[in-house]
Amino acid sequence: MSNTLHTPPGPGGPELLDLTIDNITPNTILINSQSSNARLKYVLARLVTHLHDFARETRLSTDEWMAAITFLIACGQICSDVRNEFILLSDVLGLSLLVDNINHPKPQGSTEGSVLGPFHTHDAPTLENGATMTSDPEGEPMLAICSVKDTKGKPVAGVKVDIWETDSSGHYDVQHSDRGEPSERCVMETDAEGRFWFKAIKPVSYPIPHDGPVGKLLMMLGRHCWRPAHVHFMFGKEGWDRLTTALYLRGDPYETSDAVFGVKKSLIIDLDRVDAATANEYGVKEGTWLLKQDFVLTTEQETADLRDQLAADALKKLGLNLKLVDHLPVPDVD
Amino acid sequence: MSNTLHTPPGPGGPELLDLTIDNITPNTILINSQSSNARLKYVLARLVTHLHDFARETRLSTDEWMAAITFLIACGQICSDVRNEFILLSDVLGLSLLVDNINHPKPQGSTEGSVLGPFHTHDAPTLENGATMTSDPEGEPMLAICSVKDTKGKPVAGVKVDIWETDSSGHYDVQHSDRGEPSERCVMETDAEGRFWFKAIKPVSYPIPHDGPVGKLLMMLGRHCWRPAHVHFMFGKEGWDRLTTALYLRGDPYETSDAVFGVKKSLIIDLDRVDAATANEYGVKEGTWLLKQDFVLTTEQETADLRDQLAADALKKLGLNLKLVDHLPVPDVD
Repeated sequence: MSNTLHTPPGPGGPELLDLTIDNITPNTILINSQSSNARLKYVLARLVTHLHDFARETRLSTDEWMAAITFLIACGQICSDVRNEFILLSDVLGLSLLVDNINHPKPQGSTEGSVLGPFHTHDAPTLENGATMTSDPEGEPMLAICSVKDTKGKPVAGVKVDIWETDSSGHYDVQHSDRGEPSERCVMETDAEGRFWFKAIKPVSYPIPHDGPVGKLLMMLGRHCWRPAHVHFMFGKEGWDRLTTALYLRGDPYETSDAVFGVKKSLIIDLDRVDAATANEYGVKEGTWLLKQDFVLTTEQETADLRDQLAADALKKLGLNLKLVDHLPVPDVD
Repeated sequence: MSNTLHTPPGPGGPELLDLTIDNITPNTILINSQSSNARLKYVLARLVTHLHDFARETRLSTDEWMAAITFLIACGQICSDVRNEFILLSDVLGLSLLVDNINHPKPQGSTEGSVLGPFHTHDAPTLENGATMTSDPEGEPMLAICSVKDTKGKPVAGVKVDIWETDSSGHYDVQHSDRGEPSERCVMETDAEGRFWFKAIKPVSYPIPHDGPVGKLLMMLGRHCWRPAHVHFMFGKEGWDRLTTALYLRGDPYETSDAVFGVKKSLIIDLDRVDAATANEYGVKEGTWLLKQDFVLTTEQETADLRDQLAADALKKLGLNLKLVDHLPVPDVD
């Protein structure tokens, strides 16, 4: 333990005595404002304000407070290397969608984002174009032929593309307790013409994990836990805004009621069938499901400019006296 | 999995498509409003509103969001039967103090409450009046002579009193990995005259557990992690409002900077020294530290009435159109 921990604060700080419903918030913010990190101070001040206002507006009972503590512990304890219950909680509360929208606003004409979800991993194998990324013999084979372009229609080569989907039973590989090698996931790279293509299976709708505290919460709220069929994609290349998105199959029964709010009209696609010529070219059977999609990336600069502009507009509308430092709001005290 | 989970919602619910920064909040609230539990709906609506407003006002970055997810997981995973990091988090953010104040308002003349903290256990031995509740030979012996009365000064018999404090090294028994029997904690009962008395040690100031994520947060915020010396008390008897409180020693270096905001002027006490007559009566050495305190309890009815009145006043002041059902606010839609 460092010596500073032993040293009581000198005079000048707030006197933390006789704190009440009415004065606890400014005093907590004051004692949290001793660091020199303006962003940390601002984020904590807003967090404490909202947390306290929530308790005051609901007159949160001691039993409800303890239920929340118990719920949060259960979320933390069910987490593992392959399960993230807090991302799931953020997803079902709409926070993930919101944070993605704030950070990755998409200029007209570029591909919209969708939620990352809790099932992306970092151990997916890097595969050559044309490879098969599934080991599920029960799935309906699907060929995907895709491209990546910039907003002017120029192909973008050398983009790392993370792709992941469930198996035909609606489970990601990490949800199987006997998971060996990664399956239904891979990393590819776009070629000189910005293309990438792979063999997968037709995605199916599936329930998000509902055997944990988040599933119990959805049940209490009378919400179902299903996501419409989709394939996840994540695109990364230096200088380009990271795009986390997914493509959704039109006509899925959960198309307009996704448990995690991820569906956008522009991301709903129709599958086609592979014709004879394509079958021959890509080495698949004629009549195989075909997913064709052109993704459009924006540069980091385009996104940063748009994000800054939207942030400035929003904060002005909220009447908050803030300035952007490193693209993030802090109080404007100058 | 029940069948209802498989059934997509019928028409009439919100269409969850193309959700944005501006429409995610009302749509999340709408999809969360399908249960018949008015209180649950209201609490969730306020939670989602504050969570989303927090993200919008801070333009929360993806990295900050992920840091929060990682922090919450770490809090959950360090929790055990004898450690509750989320209560600690609630304590250092001022939420515990606030929730206690909302739920246990104290009429003039009754003993004020203080934070429960994360170290109360349910395995403390029940001891007879006069017993020793410590096994620490290093502590400075202290005799405590206390009484419990109602607001009219009448003794209250048969009150269960939970008492706990740290050992002389500033650790609760549960913080020792080799903990055997409970120590420095006990449960007593007030006698026919409302009295209880026991042998303990003079409390010392101590740091809250700072080897976990909450400790790291305090460090980042430039806050110390110390609590002033105190003894915890919790009083329970049917028909009486549960009182969770603590007595703090005057002159402690952390008297006005308690890391968890628990200190109230009315709970700061001076220790005395046992005189010859008292030493003889209670079987301790003359000059032993002496804690004398009269606690004043309120009835459940007194507290409920005051709580309801304060809640109604506060909600009116906030301009929220609410009514109290089972003492808790829900929207007044009639």
